[in-house]
Amino acid sequence: MYEVKSLNEECGVFGIWGHTQAAQVTYFGLHSLQHRGQEGAGIVSNDAGALKGHRDKGLLSEVFKNQTDLDKLTGHAAIGHVRYATAGTADIRNIQPFLYKFHDSELALCHNGNLTNAISLRRQLEEQGAIFNASSDTEILMHLIRRSHHPEFIGKVKEALNTVKGGFAYLLMTEDKLIAALDPNGFRPLSLGKMTNGAWVIASETCAFEVIGAEWIRDIKPGEIIIIDENGLKEDVYTTDTQLAICSMEYVYFARPDSTIAGVNVHTARKNLGKKLAQEFQHEADIVVGVPNSSLSAAMGFAEESGLPNEMGLVKNQYTQRTFIQPTQELREQGVRMKLSAVSGVVKGKRVVMVDDSIVRGTTSRRIVQLLKEAGAAEVHVAIGSPELKYPCFYGIDIQTRRELISANHTVEEVCEIIGADSLTYLSLDGMIEAIGLETDAPNGGLCVAYFDGQYPTPLYDYEAEYLRSLDEKTSFYIEKVK
Amino acid sequence: MYEVKSLNEECGVFGIWGHTQAAQVTYFGLHSLQHRGQEGAGIVSNDAGALKGHRDKGLLSEVFKNQTDLDKLTGHAAIGHVRYATAGTADIRNIQPFLYKFHDSELALCHNGNLTNAISLRRQLEEQGAIFNASSDTEILMHLIRRSHHPEFIGKVKEALNTVKGGFAYLLMTEDKLIAALDPNGFRPLSLGKMTNGAWVIASETCAFEVIGAEWIRDIKPGEIIIIDENGLKEDVYTTDTQLAICSMEYVYFARPDSTIAGVNVHTARKNLGKKLAQEFQHEADIVVGVPNSSLSAAMGFAEESGLPNEMGLVKNQYTQRTFIQPTQELREQGVRMKLSAVSGVVKGKRVVMVDDSIVRGTTSRRIVQLLKEAGAAEVHVAIGSPELKYPCFYGIDIQTRRELISANHTVEEVCEIIGADSLTYLSLDGMIEAIGLETDAPNGGLCVAYFDGQYPTPLYDYEAEYLRSLDEKTSFYIEKVK
Amino acid sequence: MYEVKSLNEECGVFGIWGHTQAAQVTYFGLHSLQHRGQEGAGIVSNDAGALKGHRDKGLLSEVFKNQTDLDKLTGHAAIGHVRYATAGTADIRNIQPFLYKFHDSELALCHNGNLTNAISLRRQLEEQGAIFNASSDTEILMHLIRRSHHPEFIGKVKEALNTVKGGFAYLLMTEDKLIAALDPNGFRPLSLGKMTNGAWVIASETCAFEVIGAEWIRDIKPGEIIIIDENGLKEDVYTTDTQLAICSMEYVYFARPDSTIAGVNVHTARKNLGKKLAQEFQHEADIVVGVPNSSLSAAMGFAEESGLPNEMGLVKNQYTQRTFIQPTQELREQGVRMKLSAVSGVVKGKRVVMVDDSIVRGTTSRRIVQLLKEAGAAEVHVAIGSPELKYPCFYGIDIQTRRELISANHTVEEVCEIIGADSLTYLSLDGMIEAIGLETDAPNGGLCVAYFDGQYPTPLYDYEAEYLRSLDEKTSFYIEKVK
Amino acid sequence: MYEVKSLNEECGVFGIWGHTQAAQVTYFGLHSLQHRGQEGAGIVSNDAGALKGHRDKGLLSEVFKNQTDLDKLTGHAAIGHVRYATAGTADIRNIQPFLYKFHDSELALCHNGNLTNAISLRRQLEEQGAIFNASSDTEILMHLIRRSHHPEFIGKVKEALNTVKGGFAYLLMTEDKLIAALDPNGFRPLSLGKMTNGAWVIASETCAFEVIGAEWIRDIKPGEIIIIDENGLKEDVYTTDTQLAICSMEYVYFARPDSTIAGVNVHTARKNLGKKLAQEFQHEADIVVGVPNSSLSAAMGFAEESGLPNEMGLVKNQYTQRTFIQPTQELREQGVRMKLSAVSGVVKGKRVVMVDDSIVRGTTSRRIVQLLKEAGAAEVHVAIGSPELKYPCFYGIDIQTRRELISANHTVEEVCEIIGADSLTYLSLDGMIEAIGLETDAPNGGLCVAYFDGQYPTPLYDYEAEYLRSLDEKTSFYIEKVK
Repeated sequence: MYEVKSLNEECGVFGIWGHTQAAQVTYFGLHSLQHRGQEGAGIVSNDAGALKGHRDKGLLSEVFKNQTDLDKLTGHAAIGHVRYATAGTADIRNIQPFLYKFHDSELALCHNGNLTNAISLRRQLEEQGAIFNASSDTEILMHLIRRSHHPEFIGKVKEALNTVKGGFAYLLMTEDKLIAALDPNGFRPLSLGKMTNGAWVIASETCAFEVIGAEWIRDIKPGEIIIIDENGLKEDVYTTDTQLAICSMEYVYFARPDSTIAGVNVHTARKNLGKKLAQEFQHEADIVVGVPNSSLSAAMGFAEESGLPNEMGLVKNQYTQRTFIQPTQELREQGVRMKLSAVSGVVKGKRVVMVDDSIVRGTTSRRIVQLLKEAGAAEVHVAIGSPELKYPCFYGIDIQTRRELISANHTVEEVCEIIGADSLTYLSLDGMIEAIGLETDAPNGGLCVAYFDGQYPTPLYDYEAEYLRSLDEKTSFYIEKVK
Repeated sequence: MYEVKSLNEECGVFGIWGHTQAAQVTYFGLHSLQHRGQEGAGIVSNDAGALKGHRDKGLLSEVFKNQTDLDKLTGHAAIGHVRYATAGTADIRNIQPFLYKFHDSELALCHNGNLTNAISLRRQLEEQGAIFNASSDTEILMHLIRRSHHPEFIGKVKEALNTVKGGFAYLLMTEDKLIAALDPNGFRPLSLGKMTNGAWVIASETCAFEVIGAEWIRDIKPGEIIIIDENGLKEDVYTTDTQLAICSMEYVYFARPDSTIAGVNVHTARKNLGKKLAQEFQHEADIVVGVPNSSLSAAMGFAEESGLPNEMGLVKNQYTQRTFIQPTQELREQGVRMKLSAVSGVVKGKRVVMVDDSIVRGTTSRRIVQLLKEAGAAEVHVAIGSPELKYPCFYGIDIQTRRELISANHTVEEVCEIIGADSLTYLSLDGMIEAIGLETDAPNGGLCVAYFDGQYPTPLYDYEAEYLRSLDEKTSFYIEKVK
Repeated sequence: MYEVKSLNEECGVFGIWGHTQAAQVTYFGLHSLQHRGQEGAGIVSNDAGALKGHRDKGLLSEVFKNQTDLDKLTGHAAIGHVRYATAGTADIRNIQPFLYKFHDSELALCHNGNLTNAISLRRQLEEQGAIFNASSDTEILMHLIRRSHHPEFIGKVKEALNTVKGGFAYLLMTEDKLIAALDPNGFRPLSLGKMTNGAWVIASETCAFEVIGAEWIRDIKPGEIIIIDENGLKEDVYTTDTQLAICSMEYVYFARPDSTIAGVNVHTARKNLGKKLAQEFQHEADIVVGVPNSSLSAAMGFAEESGLPNEMGLVKNQYTQRTFIQPTQELREQGVRMKLSAVSGVVKGKRVVMVDDSIVRGTTSRRIVQLLKEAGAAEVHVAIGSPELKYPCFYGIDIQTRRELISANHTVEEVCEIIGADSLTYLSLDGMIEAIGLETDAPNGGLCVAYFDGQYPTPLYDYEAEYLRSLDEKTSFYIEKVK
Repeated sequence: MYEVKSLNEECGVFGIWGHTQAAQVTYFGLHSLQHRGQEGAGIVSNDAGALKGHRDKGLLSEVFKNQTDLDKLTGHAAIGHVRYATAGTADIRNIQPFLYKFHDSELALCHNGNLTNAISLRRQLEEQGAIFNASSDTEILMHLIRRSHHPEFIGKVKEALNTVKGGFAYLLMTEDKLIAALDPNGFRPLSLGKMTNGAWVIASETCAFEVIGAEWIRDIKPGEIIIIDENGLKEDVYTTDTQLAICSMEYVYFARPDSTIAGVNVHTARKNLGKKLAQEFQHEADIVVGVPNSSLSAAMGFAEESGLPNEMGLVKNQYTQRTFIQPTQELREQGVRMKLSAVSGVVKGKRVVMVDDSIVRGTTSRRIVQLLKEAGAAEVHVAIGSPELKYPCFYGIDIQTRRELISANHTVEEVCEIIGADSLTYLSLDGMIEAIGLETDAPNGGLCVAYFDGQYPTPLYDYEAEYLRSLDEKTSFYIEKVK
């Protein structure tokens, strides 16, 4: 299914228009998007033009611990957000949706993605007297809208959308409208659905539709702006200079297996990645073991294609999520570990294919290989359902430096030795594109594969200089102690 | 893996002797046993004869939210407990281990199981002036020990163990000893392990040993009493009138897949149950879908044996554990659901074998069949990895009335219709015994299968009359609305 | 009014019979008794014979943070308790009322006071097989009742009351009765009242009656046992060997000024103590300053009698109660203090009579004298509204060793020097007895004055040996640094 | 002392420069100002130019429940704030100090007072593109500063200070300066002090200096701006168009009795108000009873002047602060009350002078009169230590409508009847001015007495129209049921 590791989404969004229990439905929609952000959540509802919000740190269930906090959010429309935050910015002020009460209007805004020209835009706006409340880049759009001289509101919004660059999926709630907009490359997924009562819903992933019983209508297109109000849904574009480049890691790791993105079910994509990987794999083995939970689909595919039995050789403790107490260094050295156990009754004496989705820093892989060997595995062949991860992401995933990426600094052979495996196989880039198999003529099969080949579909703006500098660095990768 | 449903364990125990961080190790051991009880937890440590305890309601991580609460539990030995509690008895007084401070000694006690003569023993003791603090049956043993006239402490304990009847795995900590004892049928699992530093550990399941890096030594035998002190481990028995009858549901549903009970790994047992089930299954189908998380192993086995592809057609939301807000009736009718989603991209148009471990009340199965059908499954064939569940348990599992069991009241055909499946297949009793495959000459392959055939391995004492009465009831089963 | 210092009450009790909102009324009654114990609270209600309880650590308002916890305590009768606890025994198991569910009956019990033969009774009972749950001495009475062979319940209770020794005010709730009993000396106050609807109420102090709008009927007498049931109130005695000896410190310090004990209002008693003190005082001064809050009444009396103006020269911060952060040693040396401020605008250049109720260890007095001098007071004459505190209490006040009492170890002149005062005047023992002025022929005007003269009204049982030993110790008193 | 009633301060501020434990000292300073605001608190520290903040809802002790939250606020300087908030604006975004992180600088700001042109300034700024985060008027100053075209920072600040109108005491922390500024009338108190280590401190009241061991240097003057940096303290003014008009209610009710404002100690002022009131009082009586806690000083003065004994006839429960459970209507009718008790042992049969500081809505007075009568008082003569409260405040006190003020709608005779007193005496306006007795030539003795005579020292700007309208309303005052 999905788990938190060193590669993190920066958010999930959900919006609804036309339901008497809009905030409740938003709660359940966000609940299914919780894997996209666990550090903050919020909902703003619209009750006949009056916007009401509640947001706080923590999981959605912590933010809405009391039913009354949700019940207060009355109204027929709502937008909501789950947030991933890096350590330094956990301030409650960054938790979305942002709710603005102007003397002449009320607005709420939330956002999934990352702007590549945020730093320069912010500086420019501050020099013109703007005061930013939060440190995230989301409120930039609101400043641009408020300062636009376009005579009409939608015109202001379009102007603002053409000013920001990067990956973004915005939801904007006004007193009488729900607006959704997607960046010109469609880096982040965003889908449109409809409930049986006719309410329109918009969500980062279609798994939200399954949960609320909504029907998927279509995906929001790059450059598109959707406006929903009492007259229904209106489709529009703010730019025609678009080219599809969906984040490939959504298929490989981020999205829930029950979501469908651009017409391809994520579990099926993963199973196909596993099948393709099995075709490219060239070693002898006895059993297939998927790393839970994200690689179980790929392991199924690998087993099916290779004819090897799929076994539960690794078990994850489902209660780790809430554990505050960690083993001391001394206990860790004595072998005390909490999150993952290797099942010796399953792997003892076996040549294991350990299927995983990706390798970021290598520390986790090294730890799992070690677990399997301590549990008696005769050989451990690591098979990764994606190519080598060599370049950072600037469109909404929390890896912005090459220093964290083991494959940016080491060959496959070196990585294999570092993680202690008997062999290491990465899926080829072409194999990945083929396995996911989007129906499109766009380059790279409509995927953003910059992680793997460094070819970014857009200019990098504020990140350009830093990125170029990083290409010259060839630091030997530092392996931290296994946690 | 494991989940909470209407069938519940009543506890997990862990003990250690000979480690400078005994309470810490106990914490990590208990953490891996959390699936055996989520409603209370506690640890008592032994610091040179001084016993110190901490216990509270909630998950282990909530009970020990502050590191200081754990750090206070200094000493070289400890026992701990995770508790499942029925609603009415959630009082903190019932949370174990119980810690007794007498003028002449200190003692701590915890317990997994259920006594069948608790009511009459308690009444008898109260009539002799005894005052019980908690409503659980655990403290009966302490009263019996304190009132025994045997001149030696171990003699008192043995006398008490011969007085209580039913299923029990006790851990007892005195100022200078750690004592473990198992009932004469070994209904509940209890294993002995050793850490690399020489510390002895005892746990309800061997998964605790994997987590703390301990080596499994052997299982505790029925009727056995183990005494560990500064001179080492001493093996003894309090009765020789024993006969192995391990709870079969530990293999089918309760235990963690990475545990090994009586020499058989639980995942492997489940996979074999799935294979055997595939042999007995007599319908055409396209794909196999296991109900997460408990039936994934059985689904793997079913797929492997049948040659059908194993697919992730059902996805469980991993964040449901902590959610306080539930859909209203109105939203539920509109299709809003939180725990489980069927993946239409996977099941649409397919004839699905839905593999599950057991059917208790039928409501959950009915709900899942419906989910699959709504997601487009052409047919849903339910295959259950155990026989029909017809009789209650009196040895430590929280089902003590036939009224809750759909199969006590309905034929397979009726159940199939109630849950809305296209077919319903239960594994045969012989098939189950053979699939688990313990190496023993004991009846029923060393398993307690009373759930399925009503043949209880011991007299039922205080429950006898009630049980006989229940056999006459033939109430038509009430199907609650699907939650 | 009242504050927590090193001299502490050990509890307050409240009971009611005959009110549809019995637990609610008990809540408000206990709320007015909160000064008698801040570390735990509980209520047990009686709903047609079914007893229900809720108790926890902390202030009453913390224990009943949720209205639902109170609402669950339905029924026509209730008893409640607020508890003071020494550090070591803050375990929730010690929080009262204790609720017992026997197979043949339900009982609840709570207690204000201290038994002098608790240790030997407990040992004796344990040797007969009794198991104590809590470390407090309260449950001894329940063991004695359950082991009594008297054929009738009230007979059992009387037998038990004649076995325990010391100071005690018990409330006992059975399925059909509310029972109150007071020790043979009436050390602890206990009063009977009646609400306008006819409900009987019993409380440690009459301030509870003011709060709930009840009328004071009379005080419970030494040796008395009151039984209230559906037939009304029945008066009885369990012993006639009684002699009134009310704790004098209830008047001096513990009780609320609005309470009336044995016919004397506490504020009036304190004012009279202040007047008498003014008569005995032999120094020149300009203003009177009472130490807030407990000595404001005495200061009023002193000012009135002496003709000196009464000024607010010391101000207490009312928010200190809940402050978790304390000044570091370094900040304390720089003069940062939180609880009490001297008002330089009032005391500068003045000869101040600082009126306080008592001196226990001397550290607080020394600190206040210093505050006044730093604020510019020309002279500080300390006047204490009670005699020198030289002997510990064994009847329910938390001072059980002479080592903590500065006057057990030092002369008045030495104490005066230690606290840095210009003079130190204690009220004479006769002056105190006269000022309080109970209408009785009992020795010492019906007061227990053992604090001051060491003449205990009863044998000391388990404390005897320790007490005699302490008389020989003449350790020089250790002055801790002012906090 | 001080209590919360329907008349509320809007804040307290504290700042320090030059102390290694600046945030700790700020904590203790704010703690003594807690009576000025209980609904939110925050501190921002300055560590070598890096500003760090922590703020939350609740009492200071709740906001800083964990020592670590305070320890994180390292640095040599800090500002802090305690906030009073009306129900609707309890959003955490309004809690101060506000911390701004611009690309070119960091700033923190907090504020006590109320701007009279906030609404029009905000509208004007928003029309220029400004986005406000909070609903309070504090951040207006920051927008004005950031938009100022003055070339120097202090120039920008002065420009902004000349734009805002009303009552204000600002503290502003930049990377290298601490700035304090007071409005041109000095409506709100603000004082300068110095610690023994040389650190400068600024606080809303001098009681903060007593607590932290600082020496009072002088009060900040109307129109003044103080700049403290590493070169020391610099005095400056932003306007010379000033006229002293200190809020008279600070003396009467708000400030702590140990504070000194404009050279006059608050307790002494209150005692003098009581003395003057005794001179103007024209009835026969037996005893004086002050309403705790705010009127105890006035009662002392009244008793001293009149020769009547000062008695504790009313007792306040010190634990009410934290009580979440309130008596039901039914219980209230039966006489259950929690906050205040009348002491029948003191007042029975007596003609009581009940001294209180002011009457706002009359409901509290009516309740207390009733309490005294029920407790047996023969007569209750209410004596108020200030004139009739007829007009709202626009400079920082939470009464902005005449409808809430009983004296705006009723004559003294009517109020006397409504509250059920035997007589009602208000102190005359001249009497009040004389009793407080500031040394100044300013009108009304340097006091703002607009509450009493409706003569506001400044234009009312945004409030003008509303105020004029309110003068015409002559609604009969609605007396709510006594709570």
